[in-house]
Amino acid sequence: MATLFPLAISMGDPAGIGPEIIAKAWLRRQEAGLPPFFVIGDARAVGRVWDGPIAPIDSPGSATAAFDTALPVFTVEDGGEIVPGYPDLDGARCALHALEMATGFTRSGAAGALVTAPVSKAQLYQIGFTHAGQTEFVAERVGVAAEQTAMMLAGPTLRVVPVTTHVPLAQVAELLSPGLLVAKARVVARALIRDFGIGAPRLAFAGLNPHAGEQGTIGREEIDILIPAIEVLRGEGIDASGPFPADTMFHERGRAMFDVAICCYHDQALVPIKTLHFDEGVNTTLGLPIVRTSPDHGTAFGIAGRDRAEPGAMIAAIRMAAEAARRRADYHQA
Amino acid sequence: MATLFPLAISMGDPAGIGPEIIAKAWLRRQEAGLPPFFVIGDARAVGRVWDGPIAPIDSPGSATAAFDTALPVFTVEDGGEIVPGYPDLDGARCALHALEMATGFTRSGAAGALVTAPVSKAQLYQIGFTHAGQTEFVAERVGVAAEQTAMMLAGPTLRVVPVTTHVPLAQVAELLSPGLLVAKARVVARALIRDFGIGAPRLAFAGLNPHAGEQGTIGREEIDILIPAIEVLRGEGIDASGPFPADTMFHERGRAMFDVAICCYHDQALVPIKTLHFDEGVNTTLGLPIVRTSPDHGTAFGIAGRDRAEPGAMIAAIRMAAEAARRRADYHQA
Repeated sequence: MATLFPLAISMGDPAGIGPEIIAKAWLRRQEAGLPPFFVIGDARAVGRVWDGPIAPIDSPGSATAAFDTALPVFTVEDGGEIVPGYPDLDGARCALHALEMATGFTRSGAAGALVTAPVSKAQLYQIGFTHAGQTEFVAERVGVAAEQTAMMLAGPTLRVVPVTTHVPLAQVAELLSPGLLVAKARVVARALIRDFGIGAPRLAFAGLNPHAGEQGTIGREEIDILIPAIEVLRGEGIDASGPFPADTMFHERGRAMFDVAICCYHDQALVPIKTLHFDEGVNTTLGLPIVRTSPDHGTAFGIAGRDRAEPGAMIAAIRMAAEAARRRADYHQA
Repeated sequence: MATLFPLAISMGDPAGIGPEIIAKAWLRRQEAGLPPFFVIGDARAVGRVWDGPIAPIDSPGSATAAFDTALPVFTVEDGGEIVPGYPDLDGARCALHALEMATGFTRSGAAGALVTAPVSKAQLYQIGFTHAGQTEFVAERVGVAAEQTAMMLAGPTLRVVPVTTHVPLAQVAELLSPGLLVAKARVVARALIRDFGIGAPRLAFAGLNPHAGEQGTIGREEIDILIPAIEVLRGEGIDASGPFPADTMFHERGRAMFDVAICCYHDQALVPIKTLHFDEGVNTTLGLPIVRTSPDHGTAFGIAGRDRAEPGAMIAAIRMAAEAARRRADYHQA
């Protein structure tokens, strides 16, 4: 098995729960079986919410040796005053530079994978950030068009991919096309093989309309868009099936029928995964030349600094990143 | 507490799983604490799939005495050949007449509540049935406009109401209006008080768009339609809240915040309830002068006659109907 370089974790907004959940993940590194990782941000942000050992490092190469006895932190920029729960522009600049540096370390190979803690988009927009989110920023920095990537949410018993994301529901139908569905599904199928070790991934498509349209009587998108896309994919040897009525796909027996559900819109994917796996969901960007994961929650400013943040999703994100990076390395060596 | 007349259960399609799950519910009547009920349909359909005791009755008044030792069946029409798994038009006629008779017994007070087993709409349409479903048929027979009713799906930890139902997703936004939301919510609030014994029901509205529109940046329906409706309801003293991002409403802590989720469209309501409670979901029609429930599944022709059907949802539907009928009677006596 390939050697894994330490993972880079961007700290996210220093006033959010990022520093706390990263420190808590480090505390549980042995029981959770986590590989060496290091934080990129401002070491003082961790100190604000945690009194455990911190090892300042000045290069990713020092992280693995330090990891056994302390949380390695690479300080990329002064995060300003840093009051948990009260974000400011200094913190936003720190978060952005941490993301940039963490992406660069991973792209260059100095870090084994990228894990991103939550940022505040509202704060980032105030300092001139122009991307829709961290995903689009990372994709651009590693030279991939966002359209060639796919967002997958994963929990212990379910993986989902929303084909459209942050758009009004009324626009979803017109945004769907066979080409979009085929492009996303190809990215997903390749990633499940390469990064998740699934030899012949089963992709199940959710219908757009109630009861998947009931043979066209409740909407024609299944007939005009979904079925043609599925046929193209099957012609390429991808195990694509559906479209299925979304409401009967996600109970226990339903989930056993596929490896990933390809969903037409944000809530069709996010409602089942968050209903089932609210505290352990991982967001991962498929189709990048690097492995990138993220805990599927926000900055939670409302509970920051109160020792109430649960590190479950961060731990799951670190573990998934490590496993995917190892599998990908093995895949390319094989 | 008011005396409860026996419940009327319409058999549904005699070739579906209705006869089997009704018989299995009768077998578990004591452990499940079910009140006396009787079936309306064709006794031979039960005999096809069950070798337990059947008591033919010729009036609802005979049901309670017979119930202890046999399943009381009121044969309303010859269901034809009846081959489980193979529906035909004789069976459809039997199902329709059973529904009509069961509704009439309940409307007249001879039965305490109505429970409907699943029918095949495709079969019913072939014999001239013109309603969208059993709900609309029952509403008409008891003299209520369908717009004045609301469909609620309920499981052990969640209740949901879809404000729009079997319409293409692309039409949902234009069908929503403050008036529609207010009308449905009033029906729901009244029913939770009267039939479910919840003194001050908490109604939580799900946003239409991702993240409930993020203050209008991902769609304006929350601002233009949902918030005005919620304000009207609050002005009437109804505990209405939201709109909330749908994806974070249905995990365990989210569900604890409300008694019922008012959802904008079919799958927004049906995905979480079926993900969580696939085998025990009950569909109930609120706003009728009678209590009507139904197991939230279909005829399941594919497994009919193989002793594989689970009666959990039918048992839950019978229990909910009995509890609602008792509460409503007490409410009107109080």
